[in-house]
Amino acid sequence: MADIHIEVKDAGSVKVEKGATLLDVAREAGAADPLVARRGERLVDLTAAAADGDEVEFLSYADEDVREIFRHTASHILAHALTELYPGVKLAIGPATADGFYYDFDASTTISDEDLAKIEERMREIAAADAPLTRDVISKAKARKIFAGNPYKLELIDEIPDEKVVVYRQGDFVDLCLGPHLPSTGYIKTLQLTAVAGAYWRGDERNDMLTRVYGTAYRETEELERHLAAIEEAKRRDHRTLGRDLDIFSIAEERGAGLVYWHPSGAFVRDHIESFWKEEHKRRGYQLVITPHLARARLFETSGHFQYFLDNMYIFDVDGVSYVLKPMNCPGHVAIYKTQVHSYRELPIRYAELGTVYRKERSGTLHGLLRVRGFTVDDGHIFCTPEQLVDELCGCVDLAQFLLHTFGFDKYEVELSARDPDKPEEYAGTSEEWGRGEEALAETLRRLDLPYTRKEGEAVFYGPKIDFHIIDALGRRWQGPTIQFDFNLPPRFGVKYVGADGAEHLCYMIHRAMLGSLERFFGALLEQYAGVFPPWLAPVQIRLIPVNADAVDYAAEIADRFRTGGLRADVDESDGRFNAKIRNGELAKVPYLGVIGKKEQEAGTVSLRRHGGDDLGTIPVDQLIAAFDKAVADKAAGIDV
Amino acid sequence: MADIHIEVKDAGSVKVEKGATLLDVAREAGAADPLVARRGERLVDLTAAAADGDEVEFLSYADEDVREIFRHTASHILAHALTELYPGVKLAIGPATADGFYYDFDASTTISDEDLAKIEERMREIAAADAPLTRDVISKAKARKIFAGNPYKLELIDEIPDEKVVVYRQGDFVDLCLGPHLPSTGYIKTLQLTAVAGAYWRGDERNDMLTRVYGTAYRETEELERHLAAIEEAKRRDHRTLGRDLDIFSIAEERGAGLVYWHPSGAFVRDHIESFWKEEHKRRGYQLVITPHLARARLFETSGHFQYFLDNMYIFDVDGVSYVLKPMNCPGHVAIYKTQVHSYRELPIRYAELGTVYRKERSGTLHGLLRVRGFTVDDGHIFCTPEQLVDELCGCVDLAQFLLHTFGFDKYEVELSARDPDKPEEYAGTSEEWGRGEEALAETLRRLDLPYTRKEGEAVFYGPKIDFHIIDALGRRWQGPTIQFDFNLPPRFGVKYVGADGAEHLCYMIHRAMLGSLERFFGALLEQYAGVFPPWLAPVQIRLIPVNADAVDYAAEIADRFRTGGLRADVDESDGRFNAKIRNGELAKVPYLGVIGKKEQEAGTVSLRRHGGDDLGTIPVDQLIAAFDKAVADKAAGIDV
Repeated sequence: MADIHIEVKDAGSVKVEKGATLLDVAREAGAADPLVARRGERLVDLTAAAADGDEVEFLSYADEDVREIFRHTASHILAHALTELYPGVKLAIGPATADGFYYDFDASTTISDEDLAKIEERMREIAAADAPLTRDVISKAKARKIFAGNPYKLELIDEIPDEKVVVYRQGDFVDLCLGPHLPSTGYIKTLQLTAVAGAYWRGDERNDMLTRVYGTAYRETEELERHLAAIEEAKRRDHRTLGRDLDIFSIAEERGAGLVYWHPSGAFVRDHIESFWKEEHKRRGYQLVITPHLARARLFETSGHFQYFLDNMYIFDVDGVSYVLKPMNCPGHVAIYKTQVHSYRELPIRYAELGTVYRKERSGTLHGLLRVRGFTVDDGHIFCTPEQLVDELCGCVDLAQFLLHTFGFDKYEVELSARDPDKPEEYAGTSEEWGRGEEALAETLRRLDLPYTRKEGEAVFYGPKIDFHIIDALGRRWQGPTIQFDFNLPPRFGVKYVGADGAEHLCYMIHRAMLGSLERFFGALLEQYAGVFPPWLAPVQIRLIPVNADAVDYAAEIADRFRTGGLRADVDESDGRFNAKIRNGELAKVPYLGVIGKKEQEAGTVSLRRHGGDDLGTIPVDQLIAAFDKAVADKAAGIDV
Repeated sequence: MADIHIEVKDAGSVKVEKGATLLDVAREAGAADPLVARRGERLVDLTAAAADGDEVEFLSYADEDVREIFRHTASHILAHALTELYPGVKLAIGPATADGFYYDFDASTTISDEDLAKIEERMREIAAADAPLTRDVISKAKARKIFAGNPYKLELIDEIPDEKVVVYRQGDFVDLCLGPHLPSTGYIKTLQLTAVAGAYWRGDERNDMLTRVYGTAYRETEELERHLAAIEEAKRRDHRTLGRDLDIFSIAEERGAGLVYWHPSGAFVRDHIESFWKEEHKRRGYQLVITPHLARARLFETSGHFQYFLDNMYIFDVDGVSYVLKPMNCPGHVAIYKTQVHSYRELPIRYAELGTVYRKERSGTLHGLLRVRGFTVDDGHIFCTPEQLVDELCGCVDLAQFLLHTFGFDKYEVELSARDPDKPEEYAGTSEEWGRGEEALAETLRRLDLPYTRKEGEAVFYGPKIDFHIIDALGRRWQGPTIQFDFNLPPRFGVKYVGADGAEHLCYMIHRAMLGSLERFFGALLEQYAGVFPPWLAPVQIRLIPVNADAVDYAAEIADRFRTGGLRADVDESDGRFNAKIRNGELAKVPYLGVIGKKEQEAGTVSLRRHGGDDLGTIPVDQLIAAFDKAVADKAAGIDV
């Protein structure tokens, strides 16, 4: 047979026989741990045939893309097991996720947590059988025959624009899939199913409710263990569980899905966040404004939101006039600005509002505080002259960093979202304006020496923006502050100022939200703090725990001293045993527990424990109060004793 | 002719000839200044015939009821003049008001302010002619003939349930009217037309727009002058004018009628009021909660609001489910209470929320901040045991008094609104419950030694209540705090607690709003203060006015010292003349102006003027700052230097 030559990255030219697979090439090239190949821009199966002149790179398990393919192959093993255990099961889709995989299906039976063990066992057998995964390109007609009776696959086939479709086979299992995949099922060494839940077909609540089984898969057992521990930790911090257990908020279908009711503890913390936010904004020259939640629709027609945002708005008629629940605060702030004529001498004008907005979201996408139908945007709009723009943007970035730091988020990534230069028709504003706007944002980040990634095509239609992505204590990313440039509203509403030349000029306008949605930010905070708020936010800062009935009066006296000083202390006066009181204090996520017995009473001290059990020693009461005062004033993460 | 005997109050039995009028009786009895008679419960014309055995009392101009009749007769004189000046005019209705009268009509022409003088002149001629007013009871058929062609009067005639209707005549003028009236037009000695405006027939914007002419009438010229001065003062304090001139708020038809946009100054003051309100509520054991503005309609079906409040609610469908904008906060607070099981040991539980609600109001009834479509209720709900009820009610009344006092409202009238005992079917709750509830409210007011008026039939359907009516600086009444007992929601929602007996019991529930609508209260405050807020609320507490350019730097330095101390000062750095600066400071309603020249600079002082011009002398800067600090801390009406 004739030889062909393949150019392998880091190994040079490799010679193999014609008809060889990429796996053969990898072996020939001595590639370490090859799992997938990159040919040109695309990832391909190692089982693919090598062609003369190919330029390929072999990727190992160290590559994140490979690990995703790893999990994707595991999802096929899950589907394979399901077809064997539940004959007639109708498979829908089964992608890899950021840290696992899932498969949605209709098994015409309820899958319980107990069934997962059984499915898992079958999956391990399939993996151990080490069947090769093979790729096949077939006609749609043939595909329709294979998936006959499965409405989900048939719907997917109908939507594929090409004449032919791709399927992957392993043993007698076949699935509609673009791949790529691992060469065989045996590569999956450890796997685990983690949860079963309901999911609407395509996330739309008007569709069938399917069963979704979640799992994860790794090469090494230690990896799986680390992953499962992270899941446990995330579960322990889940803001929905904490929200319920700590009586912080509730959301109930019968009151309206996605609508948050803030219970006393939650409203308390939120009110402290809001007060801090307002004071900090006033300190930085913002002026508070308040605009109503209800507005005539024409306000949002003028703003252009109708064109881009119609499906997300609550719209209704009142006596023949169309009204909306405001989905954003911008048009209201512009309306206030426009009630007066403004001179350049007054600029910059900075308005700020904790403005509650309402947006239609599909019920399938709602998730605790993170995705809701009513939320409060910590909105701000700056009206300025072109000369003031970069200074104002710097002020916004500085405020964002200050706020994130105060809430203990010191890790974040910054992106500059620019337009897609190939699609100018999708954006408001001229190409020249976009150039200037993007340059102003870039100059801002340079001036502040803040590293960032430029993302082309990620800008919103009305202008380029700077986005912060917060990295939380578990390394997860959360949407953070956003600072946006607006080419749209000033001309639409005629937002002007009178310049030094006596003529009217359009304002430059900056939108910015620092916390974004207060609800989502609160959810992130709850998970970041695992429910244990720092002293300045905690509804109860210290719980005093008398070791026995004799110490109750002294504990009450100390609690009074805290309260008199404006601090928040309570006393566990229950009849429970000491250990139960400590446990209850831990469960209530009170950041500090102060144990009080005879010794403490005689010495005027408190035996202090931090939440989680750290013993901070015996502290004189005066010193403890001073430490709390300082922690509150500094908005510190904890007290310093 | 035979004699008849009439028993006259304060004059004993009076004998007159049969056929005599009450005016004859009054003369015979020597009544001082008789204008109207009270016979039994009813007020009657002096021109009415006296009957043997009548018991009557003659009322003079000193009686408020008589002054109202006086103004009502004046409205007939206005209508009389209109029929003469505008032939074919269609009269609608023309009642007396609290301090004047008006008549609504369709003259098929525009009535300008200039026309008022002409109408007024004709009215004076009619009054001077001293035509007697005579009462006639006629058939509806005859009435329809008299008012043929006037759709308003015909509609009124149709609605009268009796067979016969009453008309009053003076000269050739006749009006449909129940009376009573003064004996003749000549009693009206001074009158004045004050305004012309548009008004919908019956206040409904779907009806014809009519012309409304306002006027007032008095016996003595001095009275009129006092009244006109009061109108001028009220105009000067009109919160709509102040709101615009001080850039405090705006309401615009194009954004939605009755929807308030709070500009920076207004939002600033409102935020201070809200912070104070929240702190005071927390101090008194309230817990803040926050509930969404949008809710499923079923929440308000359960509460019973649908039955009583449907026309005032914004209702709309979202994907086939009915939603409302919350018209009140009660069901939301009940929902939060019900997320937990509560023991009697936790009670009382007091929830408070500055909850913005939306209610449909007809556009004709909207009025500045006083009547709007979206407003914030300073709502509170207390869940308690029967034993705690009176203590809790006392706490509410005390809080109401404290808040009113803080805002400078020290005059108010208190009413206890009870049910109409003849209509038990119109109320929720049993007769026994109402008895207990009304007694608890009465006991509360007795315990606090607070005089009150009992108003039968004024209660809301769900329970009896205590209402405060604030009397402002101009002697006008404003709706104030309300404290209401609720028999309706606890059984409807099953609002319960677990008693000491281990069994479930229905809570007692108190609704209370202290400021009522924050918008309306703000309007009242603006008028009360005539726009000059006390130091703790004023957006700018002191304006420093340099007498010349040399003093500008020193003024800026002093302003900085104020600001560093958390106070709010600005500097008039304009090039204007000194007098213009003083005038601008007065127009901006800054409560204190600090004049600074060479003398002050050398002495480290400020020449202080209170708004309105009072000279407070030359004050050392340190002393002035301390005085402001104290006034802010005490929430005092002014500084003490």
